[in-house]
Amino acid sequence: MKDTYRIIFDCPDRVGIVTQVGDFIAQNGGWICDASHHSDIDTNRFFSRIVVKADSLRFGINELRDRFRPIAEELQMNWRAVDSNVPKRVVVMVSKGSHCLTDLFDRMRYKELSCEIACVISNHDDMRGISEFYGYDYHHVPIDKDNKEAGFAEVERLVDEYQADTVVLARYMQIMPPALCDKYQYQIINIHHSFLPSFIGAKPYHQAHQRGVKLIGATCHYVTQQLDEGPIIEQGVQRVSHSNRVEDLVRLGRDVEKTVLAKGLRAHLEDRVMVHGNSTVVLD
Amino acid sequence: MKDTYRIIFDCPDRVGIVTQVGDFIAQNGGWICDASHHSDIDTNRFFSRIVVKADSLRFGINELRDRFRPIAEELQMNWRAVDSNVPKRVVVMVSKGSHCLTDLFDRMRYKELSCEIACVISNHDDMRGISEFYGYDYHHVPIDKDNKEAGFAEVERLVDEYQADTVVLARYMQIMPPALCDKYQYQIINIHHSFLPSFIGAKPYHQAHQRGVKLIGATCHYVTQQLDEGPIIEQGVQRVSHSNRVEDLVRLGRDVEKTVLAKGLRAHLEDRVMVHGNSTVVLD
Amino acid sequence: MKDTYRIIFDCPDRVGIVTQVGDFIAQNGGWICDASHHSDIDTNRFFSRIVVKADSLRFGINELRDRFRPIAEELQMNWRAVDSNVPKRVVVMVSKGSHCLTDLFDRMRYKELSCEIACVISNHDDMRGISEFYGYDYHHVPIDKDNKEAGFAEVERLVDEYQADTVVLARYMQIMPPALCDKYQYQIINIHHSFLPSFIGAKPYHQAHQRGVKLIGATCHYVTQQLDEGPIIEQGVQRVSHSNRVEDLVRLGRDVEKTVLAKGLRAHLEDRVMVHGNSTVVLD
Amino acid sequence: MKDTYRIIFDCPDRVGIVTQVGDFIAQNGGWICDASHHSDIDTNRFFSRIVVKADSLRFGINELRDRFRPIAEELQMNWRAVDSNVPKRVVVMVSKGSHCLTDLFDRMRYKELSCEIACVISNHDDMRGISEFYGYDYHHVPIDKDNKEAGFAEVERLVDEYQADTVVLARYMQIMPPALCDKYQYQIINIHHSFLPSFIGAKPYHQAHQRGVKLIGATCHYVTQQLDEGPIIEQGVQRVSHSNRVEDLVRLGRDVEKTVLAKGLRAHLEDRVMVHGNSTVVLD
Repeated sequence: MKDTYRIIFDCPDRVGIVTQVGDFIAQNGGWICDASHHSDIDTNRFFSRIVVKADSLRFGINELRDRFRPIAEELQMNWRAVDSNVPKRVVVMVSKGSHCLTDLFDRMRYKELSCEIACVISNHDDMRGISEFYGYDYHHVPIDKDNKEAGFAEVERLVDEYQADTVVLARYMQIMPPALCDKYQYQIINIHHSFLPSFIGAKPYHQAHQRGVKLIGATCHYVTQQLDEGPIIEQGVQRVSHSNRVEDLVRLGRDVEKTVLAKGLRAHLEDRVMVHGNSTVVLD
Repeated sequence: MKDTYRIIFDCPDRVGIVTQVGDFIAQNGGWICDASHHSDIDTNRFFSRIVVKADSLRFGINELRDRFRPIAEELQMNWRAVDSNVPKRVVVMVSKGSHCLTDLFDRMRYKELSCEIACVISNHDDMRGISEFYGYDYHHVPIDKDNKEAGFAEVERLVDEYQADTVVLARYMQIMPPALCDKYQYQIINIHHSFLPSFIGAKPYHQAHQRGVKLIGATCHYVTQQLDEGPIIEQGVQRVSHSNRVEDLVRLGRDVEKTVLAKGLRAHLEDRVMVHGNSTVVLD
Repeated sequence: MKDTYRIIFDCPDRVGIVTQVGDFIAQNGGWICDASHHSDIDTNRFFSRIVVKADSLRFGINELRDRFRPIAEELQMNWRAVDSNVPKRVVVMVSKGSHCLTDLFDRMRYKELSCEIACVISNHDDMRGISEFYGYDYHHVPIDKDNKEAGFAEVERLVDEYQADTVVLARYMQIMPPALCDKYQYQIINIHHSFLPSFIGAKPYHQAHQRGVKLIGATCHYVTQQLDEGPIIEQGVQRVSHSNRVEDLVRLGRDVEKTVLAKGLRAHLEDRVMVHGNSTVVLD
Repeated sequence: MKDTYRIIFDCPDRVGIVTQVGDFIAQNGGWICDASHHSDIDTNRFFSRIVVKADSLRFGINELRDRFRPIAEELQMNWRAVDSNVPKRVVVMVSKGSHCLTDLFDRMRYKELSCEIACVISNHDDMRGISEFYGYDYHHVPIDKDNKEAGFAEVERLVDEYQADTVVLARYMQIMPPALCDKYQYQIINIHHSFLPSFIGAKPYHQAHQRGVKLIGATCHYVTQQLDEGPIIEQGVQRVSHSNRVEDLVRLGRDVEKTVLAKGLRAHLEDRVMVHGNSTVVLD
């Protein structure tokens, strides 16, 4: 939704959080148009996403942040306040596979995703044509065994130059170096082509075929230093059978991969995803 | 959750509803342990379900109702306050098919459903044995072409005698008379064996087979005077193929029917379902 | 699979059909690499799809047809024999919506679909850029209230000129005239944006929202003179809730539409779909 | 289907298998009413299930076996021929959880499963009442840390005494000893409460909650000496969210468990499941 401010926070649970935050908003004339909460009973932590109509407040996002800060500190919040009119800036990284990339491009055309694609970075040059057709900058940054460090330094430079706040690995077949995982914590989104935690690592469809599973899947997750172990945002599955060879799994998997990535990314862009330990809370 | 009070309401949307209700609860020491809302933009109506820990309040459910009434009236609410420790009383009506009934019995054994089964009423005697095995009263009330009026008078008498507040048609193959539909408005839950609005009326699996659909479904809905037209609570589907005959659809459909009925009933029993026009809002 | 011949037939069921056809193939040295059958008990009709390695036979597709004809006539078959190396030629028709079109283009890039896209025809000019980017001819054939006849005459001319054997309506928002439906019987594939037979005709997502369904769907079917009543090839669904407005159903529906269309088209292109009355048999 | 003979075999793939078997059946007057095949290209192995109307043959199942044996030997088949009128005899093993057991009982009432339940064996006495209500023998065979050997000896004795050919572990919470796994190879069917190979071993729902997955699953598989590593017959999943605690996963999982077990068992009972390495071929 346009022209709204989102307040997203988590904090230790206790009596009166919703009321205290609600009072703050009401006293400033704010109209809450969406609110969702989650109380995690096992860890006694409270998660909340509150959406306020921007023009119902008497001030802008910066003053909102200043005024909210004391409450946030009192309640020991991990928090942020976001202006929905400022789209997130996304760098998409891709290798040779086009399905996730063109799917995102088409969703951008429909304005499904509230973001700007800042640029596309690839370790190959294959996706330049389609990227430039849609009007996006394209950077070919080769990553070879021998130049990994230089390659990822260039990736980092580009992400920073483009002032991106989200990096989407849309079937980018290289492992992000630990330093980048840490620098962009919970800002790098990957689509893994298995139903994690099954089939971590390389060639998950080969592993799935080998094990003889009857469903294959895809997992959208934040990238951390632990390969394929980051907090899961979204998952999906697709039925397969004995008659499907590995190449069929690869083909059928593409449909799940692009759908699951788009769902996970959409939730991230709308500030619905909050990391909780190694899990996520995804508020409606 | 046990030992909670649920306040469920809908009212015209406007600034400050959540805050006003939240303040009321906070002023009385209430700890909100679950809250979900829905703003329907098209009709400008607000829906809410708030769950408060019972022992955090200084009074019981009746005084809660008395104290909340002025707010409810001010905000023009359609509302109720419910004590989660008082289970709903459910009459289950069934014909000859056992699958939904035995599924509900097993869920009762697991304490999945926060209700008491007051009794089972059937137009046949087939399900007496299993009902009595589980310890439930069983009433055989035949419904013939010639005695419909007398039969449903007896049904009504039993529902009232057992002080039921919910009637579940667990594959009860008779049409409820209009007067009962009105008397127990939004208290009678039916499972229809099709993906409504497809295949209204009799023999939906025959209709589905005739049309050659590739998915069959089931629909849990409130019963109204308009046959199979009441507000939908829950739906599910099951894949079928050309190789399935009508009898296979009937068999495969049973799995969806019992699952969908259980999900819809569970939502109803937890006071998550609010009727909005001819649709439902089902709050998480 | 490449380098194979497919024999597809249906005929009255009786003893020995598989054996007689199998003997014919064996006597000619044919290696059957895939075979699937369906006996429809209710109508006593037999359906079969047999795939033979091309180089295992001592002759080509034309001689195969000549030699098979006597058997086909004896068994009163509705039949055809197809060379898998001759891709079907597909005309894609589209209006302003891009999602099905770009999805097909990406699948063509992956060689998922064993066809050639002969050209794209649209009643708008919006999709020209992306079509031409992928190297396909694009024809803008406006269809207005007043020029429908001339417009569809041009469509027919193009389909014939391009020697297409399949027409895909990839969200083409015009109703095909009856004469074209008949001329290209079971060659025109449509994706309808509802779970048919629910919500026939215009604005199905509005109808779905109005009815308050909990699942929306899409249906891939052959186009006949009866609007949205043709034989169903494939269907899919997507969960929705009270919080989804019509515009959300439209967005969520796009994912199902493109997936279901691609599945249905793939089955058609592989000669797996056989029409049976107003249903389809889709052989694995 | 009643009154049929099923010939199930797998063998090295080569030209003419279907024809040779088809000729054999045709020469004996057999009417094939169902046939499905699978050629595994990677291992060059052929799998087939052929169903013949019993009264179309001039002899019974034993003579069918005698006459078929030379062909089977010539083609190096792993094979069996089965009379569909002789139901398989199933021993159901259960612990304290009722959901899979009562689900099977209800399916037996509907004659969904072509088997006889020979008896129920449990390491607890809880399920005696419902088992005996349905008319099945019930044996309470305690399995304690100290008496495992004696306990499983008694299990083995019962399975043999009841002449069972299939053992269903319907949430039986004990690990079968290796000797029994071998003795009843591919005759013991287990339902594991996770989407294998994720979450092998104990407390899979706790593991799933810990990992923060967005879908949970269940897996029906043959039991082998390697815990939860046997060939997978069927799998299913259920959507979950951050708001579901472990106890919710357990509850939601029950629906998948019972459905997946029933599907897998049904395929086994109809002789559709053929083990291939550590995978299964499940013929339609």
